[in-house]
Formats: sequence, C-alpha cells, structure tokens
Amino acid sequence: MKPPDQLRIARAYLAGVAEPPSPALVEFVAQVGPLEAAHLVSRGEVPKPVAAVTQARRHRDLGEPALEAARTVGARLVIPEDAEWPTAAFLAFGFCGHDHLAAPLALWARGPASLAEVAERSVAIVGARAATDYGNHVAAELAHGVAGRDCAVVSGAAYGIDGSAHKGALAADGVTVAVLACGVDRAYPAGHTRLIARIAERGLVVSEYPPGAVPGRHRFLVRNRIIAGLAAGTVVVEAGWRSGSRRTASDAALLGKPVMAVPGPVTSALSVGCHHLLREPGTIAVTRAEEVIEAIGRIGEDLAPPVLGAGPARATDALSATSLRVHEALPRQAERDLAALSAESGLPVHLVASALPELARLGLAERAGSGWRRTPVTEAVRGGA
Amino acid sequence: MKPPDQLRIARAYLAGVAEPPSPALVEFVAQVGPLEAAHLVSRGEVPKPVAAVTQARRHRDLGEPALEAARTVGARLVIPEDAEWPTAAFLAFGFCGHDHLAAPLALWARGPASLAEVAERSVAIVGARAATDYGNHVAAELAHGVAGRDCAVVSGAAYGIDGSAHKGALAADGVTVAVLACGVDRAYPAGHTRLIARIAERGLVVSEYPPGAVPGRHRFLVRNRIIAGLAAGTVVVEAGWRSGSRRTASDAALLGKPVMAVPGPVTSALSVGCHHLLREPGTIAVTRAEEVIEAIGRIGEDLAPPVLGAGPARATDALSATSLRVHEALPRQAERDLAALSAESGLPVHLVASALPELARLGLAERAGSGWRRTPVTEAVRGGA
Repeated sequence: MKPPDQLRIARAYLAGVAEPPSPALVEFVAQVGPLEAAHLVSRGEVPKPVAAVTQARRHRDLGEPALEAARTVGARLVIPEDAEWPTAAFLAFGFCGHDHLAAPLALWARGPASLAEVAERSVAIVGARAATDYGNHVAAELAHGVAGRDCAVVSGAAYGIDGSAHKGALAADGVTVAVLACGVDRAYPAGHTRLIARIAERGLVVSEYPPGAVPGRHRFLVRNRIIAGLAAGTVVVEAGWRSGSRRTASDAALLGKPVMAVPGPVTSALSVGCHHLLREPGTIAVTRAEEVIEAIGRIGEDLAPPVLGAGPARATDALSATSLRVHEALPRQAERDLAALSAESGLPVHLVASALPELARLGLAERAGSGWRRTPVTEAVRGGA
Repeated sequence: MKPPDQLRIARAYLAGVAEPPSPALVEFVAQVGPLEAAHLVSRGEVPKPVAAVTQARRHRDLGEPALEAARTVGARLVIPEDAEWPTAAFLAFGFCGHDHLAAPLALWARGPASLAEVAERSVAIVGARAATDYGNHVAAELAHGVAGRDCAVVSGAAYGIDGSAHKGALAADGVTVAVLACGVDRAYPAGHTRLIARIAERGLVVSEYPPGAVPGRHRFLVRNRIIAGLAAGTVVVEAGWRSGSRRTASDAALLGKPVMAVPGPVTSALSVGCHHLLREPGTIAVTRAEEVIEAIGRIGEDLAPPVLGAGPARATDALSATSLRVHEALPRQAERDLAALSAESGLPVHLVASALPELARLGLAERAGSGWRRTPVTEAVRGGA
C-alpha cells in the first residue's frame, strides 16, 4: 500500500527545503511527523535551528513540481514510510552521533531495482577519478565478481574507479546503483551519460537532490554518506592522500560498516590513500571479490530466514542472546524508543540499535511511531525478509 | 671478561651435537649447565629425549675443531654467557611454548658488529627469492631508509628480497646482518659470495651451524627463527602463497614481535603472501622506512635511559606499573626464576618475561644462574643500556 500523496508531497518539500545534511530538520520531522513539519516549516513556525536552515527556501513550492518533474523522467521519490525505504541500512544514521551523518529525508530514485532490496546485499566500490589502469582493472574485476555473487555494487558514477565499478557490475548482468550529487534527471559527469542511462535501465540512479539540482562542489562529500549508508560495506580501490573516497570510508566506519581497501604498489601515489586506510585499525585488505563478500557476510547470514526443523519452531529460535533480549524488551502494543528498550533489556543503546535491523528483517520487530514494537506473531511465523 | 675456554668448547659441542631446534637439549643445558651437559651428553648419560637427539653425533669432537675452524676464517662463537649475547632479544624463545622455537645454544658470528647491539635496534627485511623489480626496489629502499636511521637490517642473504635488503643497508653505510643456513665460512647462494663478504666486513654473518656445515634444505626454515628472534620486528616485502618468509613472519608473531607487510599489486602472485599477512589481525602495512621504525619504536623508547630531572631521581621512576612490580619481586642477592617471580609479583609469567628485558636494559635486573636478580644500586644509577 502506497502512503497518501500528501505525505509524499510533504517529504519532497522537506527534502528540498534545507540543504543536506540537516540534522535539525531531520530531528524536527521525527518529532512532529512529516505532514506537520512541512506545514510548520512553510509558515516559519519552527525552532531556531530549523528556521536557520529552512529560511532561504521555505516559501518555494518544492513538493508537487518536483514530483511531477520526477515522473516526467521516470523517477520516483522513495520516502521512509515506503516499503522500499532501506530502513535497516539507514538505521545507524540516527544513532552515530555525527551531525554530518544526518539521515536523508527522502531519496529520488530512477530504475527498476528496489532500494530496500539493494541495500540488503550490496557493497560500495569507490575510488579516485584519476585512477591508474591497475585501479580501473581491479575495480571492474571486483565489481564483476561481487555482482556475479548476487550483491549490488554502489558507487558515485564518477570517472575512474566509480565508472569501472559500475561497468564491471553491468558486465556481470548484476545490479548497480549510482548515487549522484545532482538530480537523477541529469548525467554528471557528462562523459558518463550513456553509462548512467544503462544503470537506470538495469539498476538504480539515486539522489538526495531533486530533479534539476546541479552538482554543487560540496554535494559530492555529502553524497558520499548515502553511498556508505546504502551499502553493507565500502571498498576503496585507489585513492590519493586527499580523496573523497576516504570520506566515504570514514562515513562507513562511523556507521558501523566494514571498511575495505585494495593494496597497490607502494610506489603509486594513487594507492597512498588505500595504504593509509590499511594502517588504521579495522580496515580489511581485500584482493578479490570473495574476500569482499566475506567481509559483509555476517549481514548476509543475518538475512537468511531461521532454519525451521521438522518439529514446531519459533522464528526467535535462531536469534543471538542479544537479539533475543531486545526482542523480549519490545512491547506487543504501543511502542518503545531506544532508550526505553535499553533500560528494559539492560543492554547498552548501541547493542539495541544494532539488533533492531536484524529483528526487523526477520519480521520480528517493526517501527511504531518514533519507536519500535514486536511484529504480531502471525507475521513472525513467516520468517525471513 | 671472556668466559673460560672450557665453557666455549662445551657450548660449541652442544651447539653441534643436536640438529636445531632441539628443545630437549636446550632444557637439559638450562638445568645442569653447559659444562655438565656437554660431559653427560658425550657419555650418553642423559634423559631419553636428550639421548634421542644427541645419539647420532655425541662421539664426535665438535668443540675445539669447530672453534679452530672459526678462528681460521675470522669468526667467533658467541655464547649466552658472553656480553655480546642478545639476551633480551632471545628471551621470548624460552617462553613462547613452541618447540620449533627452541633457543639457539650458541651462534657463530663473523664481522665487526656486536650481536647484542645489533639486536637492540634492528629489523628483519625478508621476502621471495624470485622477487619482482618492484619488490627488489622496495626492499632496497626500505633497508636504505631504516639503516640510515641507525637500525640494523637482518636478512637471509638469499637472492631477491633478502639480497636487495642487504644491499640497500650497505648503500646507506648501515649495519646489516646475514643469518645463514650453513657455516659462516661458506657463501650460500654462491652468487652472493661477494655480497656476503661485504656484509662480514661491515656488519655480521651469523649462523647456528658450525663452520663447514652445508645448507640442508630443512635448515632454511629453522634458520628463519633466528632472523625473527634477532630483529625487533619483521617486514615481508614480497612473498608467494607458500613462502619461507611467511614462516619468519609467523615466528616473529609467536615471539611477540611486530609483523609488517608491504602491499603490492593484487594482480601480482609475488604479493599474495603479503596480502594474506595483511588480512591477519595485527599485521602492520608499511610503505616506507619511517613506518617501519615507528612499528618497532616502542622498543627503541624502552632503550632510552629514564629522564633524570634536577632533583634526585631513581632509575625506577620511568618504569611501568608492571615493570615496577617485577623489579620489586627481584631478590637483591641469590636468584629467582620466572615462576618464583610470577608468584612473588602476582603477575602472570608472560608479563614477567616481557618486563625482564626492559629491566635488564635499564641496568635494573641481571641474570643470575638460571634466574634473575636485582642489579646492585650503584649500577642502576648509571641507567641506560
């Protein structure tokens, strides 16, 4: 069931009224709901921090015209109230405590793939625009390998590593997602017009920015958090000392997702960023697709429905001790937020936050208002995502 | 003061009578002392495990002739009773609990450098014989860089990475140590005859095997533990999937020393071993000499004498809490072995074992018989090593 149009119009307005990332607006929307938030923002009746970031655009008509422009190019607005919203993948945005990692208020999407399905099994492959032949070769090989293993490849459609990654995934007949720093109706860079069109035919072209938006310089770094957030892990193939890819990697790390780097010749300036990452604790060196899949594998395993034996079995049988405690802390009716779930279960908030996506995917938990509750048992018996 | 010749003859005999590594013989020597051990081994009056490894050679005259042969080529036998013995560097051999890491009973050495001094600040740079131009270049650069920073380069004199490392260190007018799997009077490989001669002129050529010994196939892996033990850390520059260098790295890890690996193209079969290491927890990716020095830096800092202020200060002021507890557990007279020190200090044996080298270097502890004691205060006031 699609949410009512008013909700989508409100979300389109909210997504456009402040330049992302806008933590103040995101929090305001969470507090009063999107319909009320859009109404209040447009009237300027909002707390100071929200007014500061919405003042400049609040009088513009950012809802229906943008949705109409999207329809014209075969694009749609995916909102958190949609089944297609990658709830679990984006969960960490709200809790990592970094303002620059404010969640997107909605995402424009063009292409046949489902954002939620893509996010469940995907890896970001990113790197330098001025890549070497070595880097382009490795990016294409890795992308081809992971795409052939039923794992979507997320990247930024830039020249160099990004482009090679998209092409490698397409060559494997796999799904690939280009997250742009401009509207999904535009092709940036222009030299990748055909590539972006092919991605939109087979996978997804995604953006936080409305149709017609230009790729402002600062938007590339802001966009990188969407790449890191959508994917289950991020691989940097080549990166110089100062590189946007390292920002994607650091965003992924802050969101609690695995960071991988491809080694290269220590004599290559384009591998300096990768080697710097490899010297940081937690970065995984990857040299082939199997190793990338292994690194994001735990999430893949979580996706598998619990194995049901011959006798009667419950969907909770396969849960870890932590997830079971969180599940038991979920109310059957009403809702409970993270702090309350933490208090009830006796587990720290970050463990609660990391258990909820698994429970949601297993059909054991669902969002209710600004909190969570248990999914009714008849639902849970189906298991799986 | 040199230990009496009888002791050296006994050690030469013991070093040759069993094929290393010989944990049973090492333990027997520790129990009864080298003079008595040599006497009993030669008569066959030894426990079964010792008899098993010494039976074949015990009637041979392995002492004086070997020492005479060494003198002829300008070599010497360095024994644990010598000031030149790298006590601290080798301490872990006795406690790591791996039979294949039995300590050497003595080491043959040729060259002007002091084994003990070399061990205090050195790094092993090892790798594939069939190295690529890339690997040879990086090995030489790294060795040149660390040797130029007053750090000795230890390697195995083989073709490829080993040879490049030795040459890089020599080019920096640094000290380099070749640990051979044959007698120090031989040059293996033959193509490195001139290189090994240059190393002996400026640094050290070292072997566990007596003059004249041939480089038996199994001796290369056994020799690798001496490389790992002498150096404060081990860098693998290039290594295939099956590689002796990975054994050196694993020995270093078992001995509690940092393992470093140089990244390379993931498309190169000669970097597969390095990348495998980089995927293991604890391996440090290194791309230049500064990073190698940083990795072994803690030991370098431990070597520095405590900073003495304007007022009266004690050499123990700079000790960590652990080292201080071990120091306090050391008797002033007599001796106390590790188990007794552990009981006295309330610290686990491995912490005691790791604190003793620091204390010894600071002049606060010294070996006494089969145990340790406090160095008299007048000595300690000097501080430093």
